[in-house]
Amino acid sequence: MTVGTLFNPASIALVGATDKSGWSVNTFANLRLHGFAGPVHLVNPHTEVVHGERAHRTLSDLPEPVDLAYVMVPTKIVPAVLEEGARLGIRNYVVLTAGFGETGEEGRLREEELAAFSRAHGLNVLGPNGNGFINAAAGITPYGLPILPPLLRGSVGVVLQSGALASSVLTFAQARNIGLSLLTSMGNEAVVSVTDVVDYLVDDPATKVIALFLESIRHPEEFSRVARRALDAGKPIVALKIGRSGLASSTARAHTGALVGDDGVIDAAFRQLGVVRVRSLEDLIITSGLLASSGPLPGRRLGVVTPSGGASEVIADRAEDEGLELPPFAEETAARLREIVPEFGSVQNPLDVTGYVVVDRTLLSRALTIVADDPGIDTVMLLSDLPRAEPPDPAPVLRMFERSAQVIASSPRPVVIVGNVLTDIGPFARTVQERTGYPHVVGGIEHGMQAIGAAVRWSETRRTRPAPPPPVPVPIVRGPATGVWSEHRTAALLAENGLPVVPSSLARDEDAAVAAVTRFGYPVVLKAAAEDLAHKSDIGGVRLGLASPDDVRRAYREISAAIGPDVLVQPQRTGGVELLVGVVRDPAWGLVLAVGLGGVWVEVLRDSALRLLPVDAAEVRRALGELRGAKLLHGARGTEPADLDAVADVVARVAGLAEGLGDTLESLEINPLLVRGSEVEALDALVTWRT
Amino acid sequence: MTVGTLFNPASIALVGATDKSGWSVNTFANLRLHGFAGPVHLVNPHTEVVHGERAHRTLSDLPEPVDLAYVMVPTKIVPAVLEEGARLGIRNYVVLTAGFGETGEEGRLREEELAAFSRAHGLNVLGPNGNGFINAAAGITPYGLPILPPLLRGSVGVVLQSGALASSVLTFAQARNIGLSLLTSMGNEAVVSVTDVVDYLVDDPATKVIALFLESIRHPEEFSRVARRALDAGKPIVALKIGRSGLASSTARAHTGALVGDDGVIDAAFRQLGVVRVRSLEDLIITSGLLASSGPLPGRRLGVVTPSGGASEVIADRAEDEGLELPPFAEETAARLREIVPEFGSVQNPLDVTGYVVVDRTLLSRALTIVADDPGIDTVMLLSDLPRAEPPDPAPVLRMFERSAQVIASSPRPVVIVGNVLTDIGPFARTVQERTGYPHVVGGIEHGMQAIGAAVRWSETRRTRPAPPPPVPVPIVRGPATGVWSEHRTAALLAENGLPVVPSSLARDEDAAVAAVTRFGYPVVLKAAAEDLAHKSDIGGVRLGLASPDDVRRAYREISAAIGPDVLVQPQRTGGVELLVGVVRDPAWGLVLAVGLGGVWVEVLRDSALRLLPVDAAEVRRALGELRGAKLLHGARGTEPADLDAVADVVARVAGLAEGLGDTLESLEINPLLVRGSEVEALDALVTWRT
Repeated sequence: MTVGTLFNPASIALVGATDKSGWSVNTFANLRLHGFAGPVHLVNPHTEVVHGERAHRTLSDLPEPVDLAYVMVPTKIVPAVLEEGARLGIRNYVVLTAGFGETGEEGRLREEELAAFSRAHGLNVLGPNGNGFINAAAGITPYGLPILPPLLRGSVGVVLQSGALASSVLTFAQARNIGLSLLTSMGNEAVVSVTDVVDYLVDDPATKVIALFLESIRHPEEFSRVARRALDAGKPIVALKIGRSGLASSTARAHTGALVGDDGVIDAAFRQLGVVRVRSLEDLIITSGLLASSGPLPGRRLGVVTPSGGASEVIADRAEDEGLELPPFAEETAARLREIVPEFGSVQNPLDVTGYVVVDRTLLSRALTIVADDPGIDTVMLLSDLPRAEPPDPAPVLRMFERSAQVIASSPRPVVIVGNVLTDIGPFARTVQERTGYPHVVGGIEHGMQAIGAAVRWSETRRTRPAPPPPVPVPIVRGPATGVWSEHRTAALLAENGLPVVPSSLARDEDAAVAAVTRFGYPVVLKAAAEDLAHKSDIGGVRLGLASPDDVRRAYREISAAIGPDVLVQPQRTGGVELLVGVVRDPAWGLVLAVGLGGVWVEVLRDSALRLLPVDAAEVRRALGELRGAKLLHGARGTEPADLDAVADVVARVAGLAEGLGDTLESLEINPLLVRGSEVEALDALVTWRT
Repeated sequence: MTVGTLFNPASIALVGATDKSGWSVNTFANLRLHGFAGPVHLVNPHTEVVHGERAHRTLSDLPEPVDLAYVMVPTKIVPAVLEEGARLGIRNYVVLTAGFGETGEEGRLREEELAAFSRAHGLNVLGPNGNGFINAAAGITPYGLPILPPLLRGSVGVVLQSGALASSVLTFAQARNIGLSLLTSMGNEAVVSVTDVVDYLVDDPATKVIALFLESIRHPEEFSRVARRALDAGKPIVALKIGRSGLASSTARAHTGALVGDDGVIDAAFRQLGVVRVRSLEDLIITSGLLASSGPLPGRRLGVVTPSGGASEVIADRAEDEGLELPPFAEETAARLREIVPEFGSVQNPLDVTGYVVVDRTLLSRALTIVADDPGIDTVMLLSDLPRAEPPDPAPVLRMFERSAQVIASSPRPVVIVGNVLTDIGPFARTVQERTGYPHVVGGIEHGMQAIGAAVRWSETRRTRPAPPPPVPVPIVRGPATGVWSEHRTAALLAENGLPVVPSSLARDEDAAVAAVTRFGYPVVLKAAAEDLAHKSDIGGVRLGLASPDDVRRAYREISAAIGPDVLVQPQRTGGVELLVGVVRDPAWGLVLAVGLGGVWVEVLRDSALRLLPVDAAEVRRALGELRGAKLLHGARGTEPADLDAVADVVARVAGLAEGLGDTLESLEINPLLVRGSEVEALDALVTWRT
């Protein structure tokens, strides 16, 4: 859906305008106050004068057709307004009225009818149950809650699945002197969806960064598509996705299901799509504001310039949290700094030029110039606050910030300015920035370090995003893909499609079991081979470490008595590290790969890394690196270090097989995948089909 | 040291006052601007007029003795000023001058001399290298950086080991409309220390909460003492302790040493002392402000009232992070709420009364009244912002907040008000609060939930703090307490002092080894028994699972050939969960208990819980509950659930033994302590003495 005309009307009608409604009062005031140049018509069938102006009885009575109708009439009258508008050729609507999908079955039906009608007539409808939008770039503000002046124009586009929080976000952005391009309060998304608006913002020249507040992602494929477009366009998406505390989904059998919580999948999807996930409204806007002003940051190495030892240590703590590096200054940098930093200071990164800035107001700028030359850093971070209050004579302050702005503008490396604590940028500070060109100041060390970390990670994702993987081959599948396949059949599926599987013989009596051992020698393992046996070992279906024909015969008799005559014989493997590799179907996002270490790691710690399919081996390697137990793969506890390239290759091929199996697959789990150095081998596996 | 007179002078001299120094200008302006009623004398040997007033050449020339000298003279002249002042009977000093301990050896000597002189003459000296203090409660502001009006008086006392950040904290508290009682910038603490000031604040009737910014804790015993006094007095200490990124200390042998990082010990100490640890300057002040206004909170169960579904979900996510509960409303509460919440809203906790608050401005207050009656909640959280801007006619707004203030005041349960996002409380909002008695508003959901979580945890600590434990008995120690004791000797030490240890026989030849087995039967374990053998198994000193006399003989021969003739014979234990229990000496905090699970838990995850000694069994049980692997103790992975009372009892007695060993002990480590149900037994142990 193309929503460009929705957000750029030249004329607006407020339908249901009345002095009795706060929403009507606010919307009318907003349009008058924030620069909307076109006509605003008021429609009310019962009153001749509204908001001090003449009202019209219906849309049909307007002197001209309008580009946008802002609808505040009672719920039951909304369809009639849309019908009348459609007849008149009005294409764009904001429906503020509530009483639709959010109220239960009857409302849901009303909303479906509204959506069907709108689609049939090609109407852009924002809402229902939404406050409208603010096109700050163009000064068009059909929005039902108060907008305090000044409305700051800028390059952050904000899309919210919340009405009340839209105003909080607006307030906060203003307090940070962060200008917006567009803000939309989506309401129920009956017609126009979040992804429609993101699509628009990706193409909108006024928008550099897209900030999202999401309660749910209704169409993951659509979301993935627009997120990839945004990444390709170099426009970061920053998202606060709520509902973290939701329960894990119950979509799949065995262990993997429990590992793939809804929220874990969203984390994985966001990471792969380059969507920056934040955890607070403050971080949403602060991170967006930083990215809008800084653009991509070239790397993790910060050179930090501060006037405070205490703040330097706070920054060092937070840099470690965020995975940012504070390399020592180059010798030449240190030598130059020692010439200007007072003797009671010490020259290190983060640099504390000391409180002597109270005496020498150029000290911080001079240190910045030196640090910005250091070849070992990627970005300079300057700790500096804007003035809180206007002095009696503002000229010296303005001159000082102008000089600083010039120093920063001539820096060979990006400079990110961060204030000490998160307080408002007041009117005088805003004036300082406007008049001197002094850059954006990020709000406080705490949120600022989060924002720098997020910006660095986004920049890395953008630089390193993989080419779309080639299509996977169609796998060989023997037999009907239904129900749950036994270990034996699953192993055959893996082996036939080129994956390494432990050798195995199916025996149907004692003699055959003993004979099978000749293929690989003692010791061996015997396992029940019946179909649909997800937890063999729990029911006495597994015997380990069998070292003689007698052992094998006894084990065969016990297993066959307990479960049935089909028994697998396999060589006993020792040593190595056991991985769990599972692919399960998430109802929303499709096939998801989970990889983790076995044993306590998965059973107690739920330590796993998730990725949406498709993945390549490089992405699997990154996933392995995220595991808390990653050290074990590097050879902790005396195990042989795993060949991570070999592991990643096998896991990526398992994922490729699952992808090739496509819509028929419910889950595919290898548990364990044994890793001994560069030997990687599936010891047990289970596939579950959707039918 | 008693510092009451330092912070409450009736007359002040600024020594080294000059128009050329920003510090002098600021200090003089601060005293004039913020209500200091007494005389301010200026001392400068070279100038007759400073800051537009007559200056005196020396302290001796003043027309009267002063209560406080604020010293800004060059470093070398500071001693002369103190000598002159001491002669004149001036007891209290702020030394702003730098160039002391922070600059190296020469400065350190200067500082020692200053401290020695001050102690000898009973002088209170704040600094050197500090900006002074702000006694906001009394309007006394000898402080070297600008203080923007209004200086808000309140009940948070702030002590900072940082100069520059003192001003950031002051700014932020003002932006949150949080009044201070006292703020001190400590400087080098040559004489007056952080703990001296905390001691003062514990007794200061104007102070309810103590906020600390700490770079280091120089005297842990002193810190513990004042922290306990504060907890006894019901005054929370909230602390931002930086230097989290420091490396682990290397104070002890074996595993435990690596588990006890400096920062981990501080975490443990703070938890035991009831000190609330925060991670940002914002949280420092916001948490302090909440505690100052709310006092202790009665429990973890929040009833939340909001006008926004989106905000409700953000709150639910953050409540889970903080361990806060959002119980369903009681049936009667829900029924009453359904009568007032619009039909398009749904009644649940957190409650979204919907955007209908735009129409019905009493809706939020009425919902609050109902929720506050719910018997299943401890505290009501109201999401509501103060006004950002003053309307043309403020009277209706003032009336509305006045009515809300009355509703809140009559609530039977504490009400915590939280705003949506962290923006300043501006002049009009401050006026609203002052005029209507509307309570404190916590800054934003993100920091607000952190603050509520911290306040709830502090309140629990205060309610449940244990009685001081009884003194431990003097342990039986045989032989000289030096070096490292072998497993055999350590086991005897444990057993003699009543701790459960696996049975063990020392064998010096093959026959004795075989004979020893008769005590406990096969299978057995053989271990080298030489002294000073911390990692026996790494050098072939351990043989497990020996099931016959031949096995035992072979193992004996191998071990004795490799290491020596002394070999321990022990029964082989199977099953159960292995714990590591260590007590090590932290150079600052003394003996620290570390308890964790063995294997990957300690080697890869460093999963351990720390406690300063003394501890009782209840505290050990809490520590066990903090382990990431705690589920294993409850019987995950098919193990028998551990009797946690039995485990805690043994661990607490190990800690008691270590405490009894006192100054002679460097470390005592049991690894593993085997737990099988209610059987708890040390399988291996090592003690290291300090000499």
